[in-house]
Amino acid sequence: MSQQCALVAKKANGVPCCIKKSLSAAKLLSESGVSVVVLEARNRVGGRTFTIRNDQVNYVDVGGSYVGPTQNRILRLAKELGIETYKVNVKGHMIHYKGGKSRYFTGISPSTWNPLVYLDFNNLWRTMDKLGEEIPLNAPWDAPHAEEWDKMTMKELINKICWTKAAKDFATFFVNVNVTSEPHEVSALWFLWYLRQCGGTSRIFSVTNGGQERKFKGGSGQISEKIMQRLKGSVKLERPVVHIDQTGDNVIVETLNHELYECKYVISAIPPILMTKIHYKPELPSKRNQLIQRLPMGCVIKCMMYYREAFWERKGYCGSFVIEDEESPIGITLDDTKPDGSFPAIMGFILTRKAVKLAHLSKEERKKKICEAYARAMGMEEALHPVHYEEKNWSMEQYSGGCYTSYFPPGVMYSYGRIIRQPIDRIYFAGTETATQWSGYMEGAVQAGERAAREILHSMGRISKTEIWMPEPESKDVPARPFTTSFWERNLPSVPGLLCLLSSTMCFTSVAAAGLFAYKKGLLVQN
Amino acid sequence: MSQQCALVAKKANGVPCCIKKSLSAAKLLSESGVSVVVLEARNRVGGRTFTIRNDQVNYVDVGGSYVGPTQNRILRLAKELGIETYKVNVKGHMIHYKGGKSRYFTGISPSTWNPLVYLDFNNLWRTMDKLGEEIPLNAPWDAPHAEEWDKMTMKELINKICWTKAAKDFATFFVNVNVTSEPHEVSALWFLWYLRQCGGTSRIFSVTNGGQERKFKGGSGQISEKIMQRLKGSVKLERPVVHIDQTGDNVIVETLNHELYECKYVISAIPPILMTKIHYKPELPSKRNQLIQRLPMGCVIKCMMYYREAFWERKGYCGSFVIEDEESPIGITLDDTKPDGSFPAIMGFILTRKAVKLAHLSKEERKKKICEAYARAMGMEEALHPVHYEEKNWSMEQYSGGCYTSYFPPGVMYSYGRIIRQPIDRIYFAGTETATQWSGYMEGAVQAGERAAREILHSMGRISKTEIWMPEPESKDVPARPFTTSFWERNLPSVPGLLCLLSSTMCFTSVAAAGLFAYKKGLLVQN
Repeated sequence: MSQQCALVAKKANGVPCCIKKSLSAAKLLSESGVSVVVLEARNRVGGRTFTIRNDQVNYVDVGGSYVGPTQNRILRLAKELGIETYKVNVKGHMIHYKGGKSRYFTGISPSTWNPLVYLDFNNLWRTMDKLGEEIPLNAPWDAPHAEEWDKMTMKELINKICWTKAAKDFATFFVNVNVTSEPHEVSALWFLWYLRQCGGTSRIFSVTNGGQERKFKGGSGQISEKIMQRLKGSVKLERPVVHIDQTGDNVIVETLNHELYECKYVISAIPPILMTKIHYKPELPSKRNQLIQRLPMGCVIKCMMYYREAFWERKGYCGSFVIEDEESPIGITLDDTKPDGSFPAIMGFILTRKAVKLAHLSKEERKKKICEAYARAMGMEEALHPVHYEEKNWSMEQYSGGCYTSYFPPGVMYSYGRIIRQPIDRIYFAGTETATQWSGYMEGAVQAGERAAREILHSMGRISKTEIWMPEPESKDVPARPFTTSFWERNLPSVPGLLCLLSSTMCFTSVAAAGLFAYKKGLLVQN
Repeated sequence: MSQQCALVAKKANGVPCCIKKSLSAAKLLSESGVSVVVLEARNRVGGRTFTIRNDQVNYVDVGGSYVGPTQNRILRLAKELGIETYKVNVKGHMIHYKGGKSRYFTGISPSTWNPLVYLDFNNLWRTMDKLGEEIPLNAPWDAPHAEEWDKMTMKELINKICWTKAAKDFATFFVNVNVTSEPHEVSALWFLWYLRQCGGTSRIFSVTNGGQERKFKGGSGQISEKIMQRLKGSVKLERPVVHIDQTGDNVIVETLNHELYECKYVISAIPPILMTKIHYKPELPSKRNQLIQRLPMGCVIKCMMYYREAFWERKGYCGSFVIEDEESPIGITLDDTKPDGSFPAIMGFILTRKAVKLAHLSKEERKKKICEAYARAMGMEEALHPVHYEEKNWSMEQYSGGCYTSYFPPGVMYSYGRIIRQPIDRIYFAGTETATQWSGYMEGAVQAGERAAREILHSMGRISKTEIWMPEPESKDVPARPFTTSFWERNLPSVPGLLCLLSSTMCFTSVAAAGLFAYKKGLLVQN
């Protein structure tokens, strides 16, 4: 959704105006009567969403795929385009595999018999959500502790919050899964903001009522494909932009194949780092030139393993596995069987350091390692006999750079973040990285694209400033339920809190016991 | 030196072969009878070296300028081109300004009356140098603690090493000055390696016997200019490369102005992040695609303030000021008066966070703030009355990205660093970032350029593999003296060491005193 290279051309006064790289922006502008051209670098639309079709899989999303409650814009857009959602299978148990053992997994923490670990997990989620509440969605750099937290990596923050190895390990895994990067690579401020703008730890990580609740029937790639159809010939494929010249009355955009597009406005909806692929005249302002060097893409290989049947159901498993095992390529899975039960499959992510390590293997070698990991986690040798395998390493694509999204290394958000949506003359910025809700997701791409389109409509005098940022009504088909916390979740002590409590209790008890003893022995002087 | 866009074209079998972006590489290859073309993105050669000439300054280096002992390659190259060096003025006192007070500064630590601070400084330099010794120059990712140190920012390491605020503050300043970035932005592994490959804390930071000992008469820009003259018409200016196609028998390189260069080899000597400005066919390997997203350029504005006379000499100052003051734009200065005493000037750096903050001001506003800071640090109002001002904000240049060099955020060196010099088919990598000695400096650019040229000569069968990495004989004009440490510098305790010593001494003394008391009082049983 976020990757299309789009030029919006306004024919109003004879001169087209241009937007670059956002189909949702192009759609909105086109519907407002503004003529647009969409320049797409790849030979397909969809960006980091991509639906592959073949006989072995029918269709499969090898990129962005999941949607859930509170993602109202993408749900509205899909509905308008006639694309339905279905619920990811949650019938059966979710499994947590660690240390050679498989246990049931409920909520967002692995189950544990150790009360200290339980307290530590409870405190971890509670603390991250609480810190996140301090951070303004649209201006994380203005949070009261923005500077302090941005100078800290998530690794440092995890070490501050967690006391047990189990919680530290799982917190690392949680960062890996959510932002396809390592805790030591990312700013604590950015990650806390990221969780918050997705609705918190439970919303981002849950299947039911969370970010992974649903998928699109027929694949998410249809959204961009259908918009492309509506835009008729305005979408130009295989047109990487190499030059943007803003020195004249109109903006001149040049593509790698030497086409020139003259336009009034440009929307850039590529990830910030890919803005470096374009040469600018005049040069970008110093701060923007620095920002776009500092936001690398995360790293993930998405893998789908197809089986003759959903054999995991025989053990009562739903197909979701959380695999904490350095030997397993895959970190997390979801059932990827089609809603009618056909094409039984497990979707799994090879995340960050593992994707780097395993990228050099052949597809067959990765397939084998994945099957072995599934067989161990499920305790079922059926996992070793897939009928088909699909994968996509997003770091190989020069026009994606990686997936799911950009991450902010320490120091970037506080020093450079505030300019991320600031237009540069007639270039406006969309792309999921510039969103303020579900940034990094399809939802964020739509929010950003539509906002950028409305910025241009405002600049054209068509709408007022207050109409740029529009709230989105809740989807009636996919309503959100709040995540409630129990009294105990809110009030149980943290591990250090417990230790403190225990020691003061012991201290008090000892004093009381000593006092009682002294009294009994008549050692206390009574007046 | 490191920024030229160079194509080396080998005419041997009728087909030119190409190198991109290194004049030192182009020179070496040209001298070996290989035909070369140098494609330079800017309208000048020199890259991050740049000598401006005008009546007010005669000449001035607004980019890389300083050379010193152990930088033997750049010294040899300059000598060959007939360019002489002169010593930066060190007659008089170097000054450390902090907390509104100016004190003499000798060696590499601020002077202090507090013995704990003294111990803390001593331990800081000693520890960084000692940790650095573990790190192989050509393979920092193989250091015994590579993974651990790369997951740590320099801020974390500073907090581990230093106990006093004075040492922590100065360590931060030391990072700012040496790598134009913040301790929380950079990997500890990378920074320790960086110090080591410059010869340690004293070598990198010193004027006399260190990296800032000398400058080139007439300016460092002459080096590239003179090589360009020797290469005759082979250097093409204003040719940013937009596309490299390695799918055919020869490599096809396309420039922004639609010129095509067909060649056998390409040398890329641009900073890693600027490799993203080029579109590749086939796409870069996944790991390279990730590496080049993860190495942003540091941030600095170089500022030269010209005065009627070198008035600071009246107070016995040499013109070097270390300014630890958040209100001062400039962090460190050196006398920039010409060797014959003409054009009295102070060179100062606006470093990292301050460069970001002050970039939006006008040149006049920056000039005023700098003069005020100089007047405070020198205690001389003459500083308020300059006759001329030159400055260069390197972060504004899209074909530099920043200065002095790339920095490695946490996690990048260990996971991706090892491929930095690995050729991609027929593209070889030069640029100071790929050097193993004085990387980040002009010296590193020459080492890397010549090594890449010899890699190609080896690939052409002209030289053996062992001839690729050539040691460089020491410059006779600029010999290096070792930095010796005193017995006390090596053996004084650290602050925690001292505290430990004191407490055990006190403990021992108390026990001894108690024993003596008991003995005197006859409380000890004697057999």
